[in-house]
Amino acid sequence: MFEDKNEQRTPLSELGEFGLIQHLTSMVELQHTSSIKGIGDDAAVLEFDKKQILLTTDMLVEGVHFDLSYVPLKHLGYKSVMVNLSDVYAMNGNATQITVSIAVSNRFPLEALEELYEGIHLACKKYNVDLIGGDTTSSTKGLIISITAIGEADKENVVYRNGAKPNDLLVVTGDVGASYLGLQVLEREKEVFKVNPNSQPDLNNYTYLIERQLKPEARKDIPQLLKALEVKPTSMIDISDGLSSEIIHICTQSKVGCNLFEDKIPLDPQVISTCEEFNLDSTTIALSGGEDYELLFTIALDDFDKIKGNPNVTVIGHITEERDGKHLITRVGQKVELTAQGWNALSNK
Amino acid sequence: MFEDKNEQRTPLSELGEFGLIQHLTSMVELQHTSSIKGIGDDAAVLEFDKKQILLTTDMLVEGVHFDLSYVPLKHLGYKSVMVNLSDVYAMNGNATQITVSIAVSNRFPLEALEELYEGIHLACKKYNVDLIGGDTTSSTKGLIISITAIGEADKENVVYRNGAKPNDLLVVTGDVGASYLGLQVLEREKEVFKVNPNSQPDLNNYTYLIERQLKPEARKDIPQLLKALEVKPTSMIDISDGLSSEIIHICTQSKVGCNLFEDKIPLDPQVISTCEEFNLDSTTIALSGGEDYELLFTIALDDFDKIKGNPNVTVIGHITEERDGKHLITRVGQKVELTAQGWNALSNK
Repeated sequence: MFEDKNEQRTPLSELGEFGLIQHLTSMVELQHTSSIKGIGDDAAVLEFDKKQILLTTDMLVEGVHFDLSYVPLKHLGYKSVMVNLSDVYAMNGNATQITVSIAVSNRFPLEALEELYEGIHLACKKYNVDLIGGDTTSSTKGLIISITAIGEADKENVVYRNGAKPNDLLVVTGDVGASYLGLQVLEREKEVFKVNPNSQPDLNNYTYLIERQLKPEARKDIPQLLKALEVKPTSMIDISDGLSSEIIHICTQSKVGCNLFEDKIPLDPQVISTCEEFNLDSTTIALSGGEDYELLFTIALDDFDKIKGNPNVTVIGHITEERDGKHLITRVGQKVELTAQGWNALSNK
Repeated sequence: MFEDKNEQRTPLSELGEFGLIQHLTSMVELQHTSSIKGIGDDAAVLEFDKKQILLTTDMLVEGVHFDLSYVPLKHLGYKSVMVNLSDVYAMNGNATQITVSIAVSNRFPLEALEELYEGIHLACKKYNVDLIGGDTTSSTKGLIISITAIGEADKENVVYRNGAKPNDLLVVTGDVGASYLGLQVLEREKEVFKVNPNSQPDLNNYTYLIERQLKPEARKDIPQLLKALEVKPTSMIDISDGLSSEIIHICTQSKVGCNLFEDKIPLDPQVISTCEEFNLDSTTIALSGGEDYELLFTIALDDFDKIKGNPNVTVIGHITEERDGKHLITRVGQKVELTAQGWNALSNK
């Protein structure tokens, strides 16, 4: 981290756009029978039989979504794919293809883009996703990444945000808040580095937090788990902006209210210890941190026995009538209105 | 053009990201039965039966692909859609959906994005395409637009770049070179305006050129025409980088050569007169100008009678064996090697 390797640098101009795309994607081998045609023509061709196609797109901008002074390009590539795949899994689908468009200024040498694509290819391989197209162009400033993910699902399995019903249970996968804290740790180290470029940061106490921030994993396993457990959620969403914001999305679109129990929110021990160190309230971090890429869903009460005791999921509350409002029930039993404060709001504090 | 209307300006921050997307897309009504779910969930859902899905994406960057000092935002939105639809038509398919991702700096007020989306919505309406998703975020500099278009085609109708065979005819739709000349006219007027902001440009002699540059139309009609004529091209591509570059793409991917006849290249009278005025060679402009968004395709010689005399298409050459090379046959019968010089190359002259 923070080191300048002084590696060989090839100006992008040497390759030209076609050469660049070819160079960056020459190792792609299509994996899915549905990928009829990938890179190399005007458009990609997909073929599905009795499947619904899921499509999602996200754009990441340097200086807005990431800071290259502490985000390695390989991790950035990996994470950019995760952000998109997560949206497909949040529909209870399986991601099958992505396209990647990149605008990049001249300050980036070829090796930088190779590193970025290394992370993209790694994500594709690990998640069994085909890279089927994209666009590479120059920018006047910085790096912009726009990814579109395509997925498929049997029609009857697709889960939307708007199906939550009163008495449904509110369930979250994994734990929350770690990614935002990882960002705080990295920001702090960046400031230390500015003052003393020779300092060697000791990040041992924050490994989980930093990994959650730099190299999150999308929950490909959850749609599979739900299928195996024979549970179809009534609604589902991924946690990109923060737990409270996502709960409110489900409630608003489903026209319901909810009670979320503070003491049920799953936190990693590093989140608790680091919140103490940074003098932050762990519940605020969990609710508003964002970038967890866990899944939040609701299930019918009758399905509780199927998920009970499963280490991948935690029941954190239940759905109520819309008129009852959206509330957090604190550890001491207080009922507080749930408000949406994404990580943007936190950053601006 | 060039006027400052001093209209009301709403800062984007007033709306927030969700509010902004909702504001910009609230009037979208899904048109296709295949559009199961559009904006408002984690991913869009499409459903097709026995169709192949076509997917293409392009990114446009301010200062690289467009100059807002003379490109009206509404036209930019319209053109951004055309660029993508054109790729779908070039596969002999029908465009059905698009996603639009935009990164924009704070200097753009809401009204600017509304204008941009006005053009996008107009294009969608005119071409019967559903806007099904996207992403809106801030940029540190300028405007970046990333569009993905999805289309469909019966499996047996999809046309790739790699199917041209020796003796096939090389065919182009419409005329070429006008868009690049339109850009030259606009660049000249910009320089005049810099010197004298009160000058009123007289653009009457360049209306066709400027329209081709600012508001190109993708050839949705050509796949339909080909179907009606019962012609399936052996290869097809759209003309974005310039006629010669696209011919070379087809030849390279099909492993064939070609003879292109200079006197057959279709030029609008305004292209000829403006080339004279600007002291430019019209053939060079036609070959390397780019951004025409016409279609270039090859057909079997046996299909010639079916297209003969059709005003939409012009036979400009024929395919040869690969070993014979790629040549331009000039008006005086000289055989010149065809080289790829996109509009970028031209701009750098």
